[in-house]
Amino acid sequence: MLTSAEYADIVNRALTHIDIPDYLPGLYDPIRYTLASGGKRLRPVLLLAAGEAFGGELSDCLWPAVGVEIFHNFTLVHDDVMDNADMRRGKPTVKAKWDVNTAILSGDAMVSMAFKAAAGCPPMFLPEVIDRFSMMTMTVYHGQQIDADFETADAVTFGQYLQMIMGKTSALIAYPCALGALIAGASPQDVEAMFNFGNNLGIAFQMQDDHLDVYGDPATFGKNIGGDILNNKKTWLRIMAHDRCPAELAKAEAIADPAEKIAAVTAIFDSLGLRDEGERIIGRYTADAISCLDDATLTPAAKAWFIDFANTLLHREK
Amino acid sequence: MLTSAEYADIVNRALTHIDIPDYLPGLYDPIRYTLASGGKRLRPVLLLAAGEAFGGELSDCLWPAVGVEIFHNFTLVHDDVMDNADMRRGKPTVKAKWDVNTAILSGDAMVSMAFKAAAGCPPMFLPEVIDRFSMMTMTVYHGQQIDADFETADAVTFGQYLQMIMGKTSALIAYPCALGALIAGASPQDVEAMFNFGNNLGIAFQMQDDHLDVYGDPATFGKNIGGDILNNKKTWLRIMAHDRCPAELAKAEAIADPAEKIAAVTAIFDSLGLRDEGERIIGRYTADAISCLDDATLTPAAKAWFIDFANTLLHREK
Repeated sequence: MLTSAEYADIVNRALTHIDIPDYLPGLYDPIRYTLASGGKRLRPVLLLAAGEAFGGELSDCLWPAVGVEIFHNFTLVHDDVMDNADMRRGKPTVKAKWDVNTAILSGDAMVSMAFKAAAGCPPMFLPEVIDRFSMMTMTVYHGQQIDADFETADAVTFGQYLQMIMGKTSALIAYPCALGALIAGASPQDVEAMFNFGNNLGIAFQMQDDHLDVYGDPATFGKNIGGDILNNKKTWLRIMAHDRCPAELAKAEAIADPAEKIAAVTAIFDSLGLRDEGERIIGRYTADAISCLDDATLTPAAKAWFIDFANTLLHREK
Repeated sequence: MLTSAEYADIVNRALTHIDIPDYLPGLYDPIRYTLASGGKRLRPVLLLAAGEAFGGELSDCLWPAVGVEIFHNFTLVHDDVMDNADMRRGKPTVKAKWDVNTAILSGDAMVSMAFKAAAGCPPMFLPEVIDRFSMMTMTVYHGQQIDADFETADAVTFGQYLQMIMGKTSALIAYPCALGALIAGASPQDVEAMFNFGNNLGIAFQMQDDHLDVYGDPATFGKNIGGDILNNKKTWLRIMAHDRCPAELAKAEAIADPAEKIAAVTAIFDSLGLRDEGERIIGRYTADAISCLDDATLTPAAKAWFIDFANTLLHREK
């Protein structure tokens, strides 16, 4: 197997070879801009790695991997419209650089490109790949709808939070793991085990993201610390604080000054021991993810690859 | 072969059997609302008819037909966001009845449902069906982008107008005709002939729609006469008038009173003889569509079915 960086490089090269026409710049320039903005290509890397881990050919897995990456990038484009966000990863969003209609239409086109790329798998796997790919997309939309419903919900349970992040975050990690195994001709048990690995890893990943928003190092996090707190976002920290001391939380969240609000809410999280508790829960989901690998018929080297991937992902600081 | 109404009935029954979950009403209620709003189901009817015309099984064609109809309905949901439209066919749009974000997310989910439905064709045709289905969607997006570019363009040629309507309107008529033939196992020549039939028919259909906006009978047209004129929409009538008497047209379009503006612009169209000229051009595209059927190995009865469909479509008053 290759390294994550090598798989990412293969994905990046493939992305420069997809057929994006030179005409209609109003439609295609935003797509080029979005796909070129980089990132670590974690999702297609997992698909390629899962494919090779079960003896599949890289070339059989490449286009579905590209499809996953295009779909992931599409979700960012439409999310930024729905969240009215002007910046992402330090660059203007499509909606800000162009306009809302451009972001809607270019995003729509990316979905078709994603399905077309996914359909580039070997024909014998095509019915199942399309079925799982569309399930993946629907699961993401479910997560987005649950998240939207949170905005008007008074209390959100940790269980509802898990449902939400299994859609918005885990689906795009779990399905690529399963798709790679599937295209390699792995058994249904192996496909399932890889899905479960990705699902748990995705939960740990999102919980870590919430954690870093409060306890990350501002120098390496890449976003401003406390952004979720300022938006009263229903992260697991806020859900637990709301559960345990709703009155204090409401008081802290009512503070108008941003820096003071962040400090007051963080003090509540601290007093509840959420920093350590979160690290324990995240550690448990990571361990669960890794133990799912025991259910898959992986070589020791392949298993080590995914364990290393999980540990690297969870020890990131941004 | 069945009648159009019978095929539409089959599509309507299938639409009530697609798997729309009971949970997440914020996501699924707008989808149910959109798919229940009816219409003549012209696009899936053509797919089913083309399938039967070439000896295919209705059951093999049904889900791709449903996929085409779901995709068509999705385009209306997102179009209404981009056009900021509150009413469609006398009912509130999703964007108006719910909100913009709901329309974006529900629309996105409909695309996945459409691809999934399209993938319900027999597996041997799946690679080509997915390929053509995604081409169909991209062609629609091309048309929408050309239309968006028209808004800031000073002069638009009739050729550019044709490009636009071949995307926005013809693609969703031509591809269903081709897909039905394809799934029935028709030859590439037959698939191509049916595509060309649909493409020409779509052009005639859209030109007719522009014509009815000016010369339709208000009692049967279903929309207010002159809506395109009020919006300075680049219909073929406006393009020809702009070409032949730009100064007069600009003066008429500058009139503030809506009824006076419609009367003045219509008078220009009248003076240029566009009513008759349009009918001639529409008649020519219809004749071209029908002559494409000669290139297909259709039984006389099947050929008569498509000729009748074309004539009924073009003699509609709404």
